[in-house]
Amino acid sequence: MSALSNSDNISTGCSSAGKGSSVDVIISEVGPRDGLQSIDQCVDIDTKKRWITAEAAAGVREIEVGSFVNYKLLPQMCDTAEMVRHACGIEGLTVAVLVPNLRGAVAAIEAGAHKISIPVSASETHSQKNVRRTHAQMIDEVRAIRQRIEELPKAQQPYFEAGIATAFGCSIEGHVPLSKVVELAGLLIGAGAEEVGLSDTTGYANPQMIRERIRAVHCAVGSDKLTGVHLHNTRGLGLANAAAAIDEGITTLDSSLGGLGGCPFAPGASGNVVTEDLVFMVESMGLSTGIDLDKLVQVRSILKAGIAEEPLYGFIPDAGVPVGWADTHV
Amino acid sequence: MSALSNSDNISTGCSSAGKGSSVDVIISEVGPRDGLQSIDQCVDIDTKKRWITAEAAAGVREIEVGSFVNYKLLPQMCDTAEMVRHACGIEGLTVAVLVPNLRGAVAAIEAGAHKISIPVSASETHSQKNVRRTHAQMIDEVRAIRQRIEELPKAQQPYFEAGIATAFGCSIEGHVPLSKVVELAGLLIGAGAEEVGLSDTTGYANPQMIRERIRAVHCAVGSDKLTGVHLHNTRGLGLANAAAAIDEGITTLDSSLGGLGGCPFAPGASGNVVTEDLVFMVESMGLSTGIDLDKLVQVRSILKAGIAEEPLYGFIPDAGVPVGWADTHV
Repeated sequence: MSALSNSDNISTGCSSAGKGSSVDVIISEVGPRDGLQSIDQCVDIDTKKRWITAEAAAGVREIEVGSFVNYKLLPQMCDTAEMVRHACGIEGLTVAVLVPNLRGAVAAIEAGAHKISIPVSASETHSQKNVRRTHAQMIDEVRAIRQRIEELPKAQQPYFEAGIATAFGCSIEGHVPLSKVVELAGLLIGAGAEEVGLSDTTGYANPQMIRERIRAVHCAVGSDKLTGVHLHNTRGLGLANAAAAIDEGITTLDSSLGGLGGCPFAPGASGNVVTEDLVFMVESMGLSTGIDLDKLVQVRSILKAGIAEEPLYGFIPDAGVPVGWADTHV
Repeated sequence: MSALSNSDNISTGCSSAGKGSSVDVIISEVGPRDGLQSIDQCVDIDTKKRWITAEAAAGVREIEVGSFVNYKLLPQMCDTAEMVRHACGIEGLTVAVLVPNLRGAVAAIEAGAHKISIPVSASETHSQKNVRRTHAQMIDEVRAIRQRIEELPKAQQPYFEAGIATAFGCSIEGHVPLSKVVELAGLLIGAGAEEVGLSDTTGYANPQMIRERIRAVHCAVGSDKLTGVHLHNTRGLGLANAAAAIDEGITTLDSSLGGLGGCPFAPGASGNVVTEDLVFMVESMGLSTGIDLDKLVQVRSILKAGIAEEPLYGFIPDAGVPVGWADTHV
């Protein structure tokens, strides 16, 4: 496993947070953002707070608690600032948020987020639909955000990542050339993103493509500039793709408790990788996530009570862990 | 992909069948055996015949059409001889069956099966529960079957494989030592099996374990003596494990249309890898299966009509293939 050599004793997330505890793979819970933005109802903030508090108590080191977007378009995200403030009170948790532009980044900084991610679609058509911006405009946003961050004292600077959406294909444009992804990665790093992530927004990736694209981006910008992927399970390949990504040295994997999630502007794309199943796979492979799987599964009860209409997915909650699992995992 | 170098232009299955057409990966449909043995109802033989005929027409090269077991224990398999005779009339199809012992093998040979597989559990407890035999007794069965095959003229000899069940763990014993699997592989080859397969009967495997165990068995008996794996999706890792197996040079993968299947004697173990999703993954990775995915998905209508009570699984039938897929796949 290349991850073992590359990621041994990586610390969790950004320098602004964390107790310095180390894991092999960081599971970044994105359900409160990607999961909730894809469902119609607005979940009450108490449920959301209990959700992230319980996940952090189960050992989850990084949670994307919301996004600073136009609340008229996504009213589900109207309480992100309060979510950030609550999450920042949880010791050892890296508090991540998504921002579509400088305005969102400013709000994220004000709220105190540790990590901000801006999605930039490799497919320009998807970019126009998702955030109404061209590539050039998005690069300008990245540059403006970097400038704003630089104006802050070092200790207050959030970690700044650009997530390359539709990095493995677009449900509108279809094939997205690898050269486009590599070019965009270079431009984003050049404009001031500390790193890029690859997002399979549409569930088009396969393990071979995962390997190929990660290697190409690593070659172009350096392996320290691409450490995370965001995978969807639309076509059932989420875990296969995660395993391939880990094998290529990726150390941060996004996922969603119960498989909540999707992209409302990418037709047919639904469902992040299920956090419970991902943790099981990673731990089974002998890599530590720092997460107590039993406690994690119990967090589902908060979602079942608070978002009763939404189905929850996942194999581990039904099948349970293998006999003997408890002997080798906490 | 190691599979590309190892399996380029492999011919399909045993010498008794096939048109000599070549593929990179053989998808072996085991639904008519592993799927149907796990459900209570006996499906009428006309439905079963139409099922396998339609799958073969979609390009599936190998189908396990049934098992020659005690029909009092598994009445679902009472018509296996007739299924074999029907399947042997389908040009280019490798007709596989499962046999638990010499008696079953004799029946399989009489019916004209091209390939016979005997399951031998790495877990002796599971072996006792599944076929009421110890390891020593199973090795004797393998030796007796080989002897019987040798008495046939070369052209009539079926291909003879031993499938190592619970090769990645047992729901009764828990951990199954790698050394036990390697030892058993050697004994089975020594007793006359042409090759061994590794079966994740209980859904305990993970990609790391898949790699480790395939490599160890390849080292022990030769890579030509282990070319196939049989994976279950009990904990959602079926495709991840399949991708790892392909990467280790495996060229035959068992799966079940609609994810039918399981092992009635391994509590909690249910559902083979879904054929439709597996074909999608393999073809997406640039490897040919010879299967028309659209035609394959249409075969589900035969199951829906004939086994209406049983749920069918799979992502591809719901999500569809990516935009642009048709440009690169037949």
